[in-house]
Amino acid sequence: MRIALDAMGGDNGPPPNIAGAVQALQAASDLTVVLVGDETTLREQLASAGDYPTDRLEIVHAAHSVGMNEKPAEAMRAKPDNSIAKCWGLLAAKKVDGLVSAGNTGAVVAGGLFLRKFLKCVHRPGIATVMPTAKGRCVIMDVGANVFPKARHLLEYGAMGSVFAKHMLGVERPTIGLMNVGEEEGKGHDLVQDTYNLFRTSSLKDRFVGNIEGRDIHSGKVDVVVTDGFVGNVIIKLSQGLFEFVMGMVGQEVIGQLSAEKDLAKKALHGLVQKYHYSAFGGAPLLGVDGVCIICHGSSKDRAIANAIGVAAQDVRVKLNEKIVAELETLPTTSD
Amino acid sequence: MRIALDAMGGDNGPPPNIAGAVQALQAASDLTVVLVGDETTLREQLASAGDYPTDRLEIVHAAHSVGMNEKPAEAMRAKPDNSIAKCWGLLAAKKVDGLVSAGNTGAVVAGGLFLRKFLKCVHRPGIATVMPTAKGRCVIMDVGANVFPKARHLLEYGAMGSVFAKHMLGVERPTIGLMNVGEEEGKGHDLVQDTYNLFRTSSLKDRFVGNIEGRDIHSGKVDVVVTDGFVGNVIIKLSQGLFEFVMGMVGQEVIGQLSAEKDLAKKALHGLVQKYHYSAFGGAPLLGVDGVCIICHGSSKDRAIANAIGVAAQDVRVKLNEKIVAELETLPTTSD
Repeated sequence: MRIALDAMGGDNGPPPNIAGAVQALQAASDLTVVLVGDETTLREQLASAGDYPTDRLEIVHAAHSVGMNEKPAEAMRAKPDNSIAKCWGLLAAKKVDGLVSAGNTGAVVAGGLFLRKFLKCVHRPGIATVMPTAKGRCVIMDVGANVFPKARHLLEYGAMGSVFAKHMLGVERPTIGLMNVGEEEGKGHDLVQDTYNLFRTSSLKDRFVGNIEGRDIHSGKVDVVVTDGFVGNVIIKLSQGLFEFVMGMVGQEVIGQLSAEKDLAKKALHGLVQKYHYSAFGGAPLLGVDGVCIICHGSSKDRAIANAIGVAAQDVRVKLNEKIVAELETLPTTSD
Repeated sequence: MRIALDAMGGDNGPPPNIAGAVQALQAASDLTVVLVGDETTLREQLASAGDYPTDRLEIVHAAHSVGMNEKPAEAMRAKPDNSIAKCWGLLAAKKVDGLVSAGNTGAVVAGGLFLRKFLKCVHRPGIATVMPTAKGRCVIMDVGANVFPKARHLLEYGAMGSVFAKHMLGVERPTIGLMNVGEEEGKGHDLVQDTYNLFRTSSLKDRFVGNIEGRDIHSGKVDVVVTDGFVGNVIIKLSQGLFEFVMGMVGQEVIGQLSAEKDLAKKALHGLVQKYHYSAFGGAPLLGVDGVCIICHGSSKDRAIANAIGVAAQDVRVKLNEKIVAELETLPTTSD
């Protein structure tokens, strides 16, 4: 199995990407990683990367890269030979099975949408993200690819998120909830009301628990949270910010008051931060494209990159896309 | 100053409302509270409420109450003599200066919208909520009154939230941020793009910092977060749920490992929970209506009710509505 890695992507450039690729190669013997980026830079940095299986690490040159703050569509047009576009090119040409990027998220999504190689039955791809809950983990979809979706898109996100939860998180019968401002039917704006009705009359109806509220995400009420990309994006960034805020407060106002057991408490808090850090799962899949695409946080370190490559490889191993298509084929057809 | 209290509102009925009213009366000698609800029940429960200034506590009978899970508009129509409608009636007749309710939020908002007594220059009232941040507090508006607003409404929410932050939270020059999926201009859907442009060309432009993301709320990047009622509702409920989830984890995985200093740490954690609990500020004002309306969480206990009555009284003392109108008069006029 072959995974392309956007080696120029992320806030810190090639180093964490190279280190993450090496870690991923050491962890999986069926894996080849294709580093995509400036060949001279990558060869130089690889020279000091320590031991790695040279026969399973390739380099494909890309003359340019997209900056983290560049406007996605403009950058993709102005620099067609950038590392993100090259990764998508390798995927479209079936030279790799999947791609991983910690680069400009908008550019990664735009690259996938430009190609228009969607899975059969998919109208719009969306980004799924795994979040920790009091009962384990849940999948939230979409978190930013589609900020003003149609109800049909949200129905498909429920189906795709559900397949992901089953085959990647090991949930036997995933439940699906629709993010809303109240639980009762009829709550919220037109989009969520229409989506609610689509779910209730679809093949997903037995898995659909109805509307959920913001507080239900971390309590673990459902396995799959369906929402538009605007709300989903706010949810993941708010969760990350609030988590850091609360951890900072606990460090200061709780652990700061201890003396004899201060170090023990600090270590336990550090463990908790690690456990619930966004890097623990390893990237967010753009589901619905033909091939595997995992998007990482811009600040990803080696561990997060290695985990993301691992997730991409596992997506390929479990044939996630075949299963997604099989699930979507059970939905009513639509011209939307 | 006279504040009406929906004595039947909330998950626990009259007891926390009565206890909260008594606490509020003891704290402010210029205050009269009008308890609105079933007179027999209220008289009975007041008999065991301990000492209170009897000359500053009145009762107004309401034959019905709206259940927490009833459909707001239907319930308001079917039971015109309910305690929420009666509170609004007292406000409209200028028999009280403000109202406080921990009842069905949708019904409280519906009551205000039915009356159509909005402040001059206000097109749609919205709910403001105060959230703790790493730098103090911020105001988020709207959090649920208006789930599909126009850009003009959001501009007004920025103005109203800013006046609230200045006069109720003591922020001399409040900054305003627009909740979006990225900081750059041009991000997000049509509503946020239109709103961005309205702010940039309005009298609020010097206070408007532009788009903010979910992670910026708790870092305290701005004093006023402007968003539609759908996203705002998800934000406050998600924050509450995540806060409880993280506190639970800290209790279990950090404090659970301590021995000698376990009690000390537990006490500090309890203090932290109290400090950041939603009841600490005391209710969310429905801004934009002619009069003061404070909406409390359904699970409010006496302390939260007393704080909310205190906030309502303070709104009246600082003449918040006059200041809101003065601020809105600086905005360009519109026919929307």
